[in-house]
Amino acid sequence: MESWNDPRLTKQMAFLVEADKLKNVLRRTLLTDGSRRENSAEHSWHIGLLALTLHEYAAEPKPDLGHAIRLLLVHDLVEIDAGDTFAYDEQGYSDKEEREKAAARRIFGLLPDDQTDSYLALWREFEEGRTPEALFANAVDRLHPLLNNFATEGYSWKQNGVLRSQVRARMQPIRDAAPKLAAFVDELLQRAVDRGFLADRPQPEGG
Amino acid sequence: MESWNDPRLTKQMAFLVEADKLKNVLRRTLLTDGSRRENSAEHSWHIGLLALTLHEYAAEPKPDLGHAIRLLLVHDLVEIDAGDTFAYDEQGYSDKEEREKAAARRIFGLLPDDQTDSYLALWREFEEGRTPEALFANAVDRLHPLLNNFATEGYSWKQNGVLRSQVRARMQPIRDAAPKLAAFVDELLQRAVDRGFLADRPQPEGG
Repeated sequence: MESWNDPRLTKQMAFLVEADKLKNVLRRTLLTDGSRRENSAEHSWHIGLLALTLHEYAAEPKPDLGHAIRLLLVHDLVEIDAGDTFAYDEQGYSDKEEREKAAARRIFGLLPDDQTDSYLALWREFEEGRTPEALFANAVDRLHPLLNNFATEGYSWKQNGVLRSQVRARMQPIRDAAPKLAAFVDELLQRAVDRGFLADRPQPEGG
Repeated sequence: MESWNDPRLTKQMAFLVEADKLKNVLRRTLLTDGSRRENSAEHSWHIGLLALTLHEYAAEPKPDLGHAIRLLLVHDLVEIDAGDTFAYDEQGYSDKEEREKAAARRIFGLLPDDQTDSYLALWREFEEGRTPEALFANAVDRLHPLLNNFATEGYSWKQNGVLRSQVRARMQPIRDAAPKLAAFVDELLQRAVDRGFLADRPQPEGG
């Protein structure tokens, strides 16, 4: 680690340089043009833009937008160590919490102590999903891959044999946090099924 | 464009899908591990994180952090049409304003009218750089590529024959918006020159 004149700034810069690694964490979804897999850093930007654009649909009590975006900027950093766990990977989810906790301690631990605490608090708030800001942040985080999957004719749904019922269950946070967006999700999933992007029931083996 | 039941949401979703293209706009800087060029979407996320982490250094009057991050989320979207103009490309800068204005009208014009207006206002505020939030946002936007260039031993400086005096001039907004960060910049540039990452004066031709 490069050491600078100011010890506090040295820690902050070490953290900010470490954060660069999120750009190498690949998600299962493709970009909407299908050219390559999306990484978690650009996803984090995109969901910030979703939050800004769709904030009007957040349920009462209205989340503070600035705080919701702070949660979104920080929440995926644990993936630098823990990797991106695919939404429909049951095995991956079994130890997701433990892996991500250790990652949060190491990565946010690069910061000065007071910021370690405040970033850990932001990350926990997002994970617990109880405040209006965390509910809304989780909702846009779930909504985003739907847009990519729809644009790429269901690429990661097909690749992983995902069913509409699984996607609907995964979108539950949207029903609570932004009911109008939930209606949009249902409309999108219906079209995805109608166009063959998403399966409505398990496909027969060896069909 | 996909048309949904709700005309307002149709426009918002068209904008959010269009925004995906920012992930294909490449900057001159490499990731800190040198593996590939950075794109403008992941850069936009990273400078949001810089703003969050370095906000304590912002000069008085303290910028509102949430608003500064909103400026950062939106400001690079014009590059979808106008491309990324390299900081030290004088020719590129000659028509940058015109190209970006047209881009802003088209891209933010995808949104419902009230949001077109508010996003154009955010973009203009960043470009004009007069509010405390725009000053601070510009400062972190300038600071970010220094970290990448330092980590990659001056890759884009060397590629483009950039001199310390040019980088220092480019960093002027940091002096006004966050003096402590300006001291860090000077320290970093001195080390970059000492280690041969950055030239202090023009190299003799054919030397």
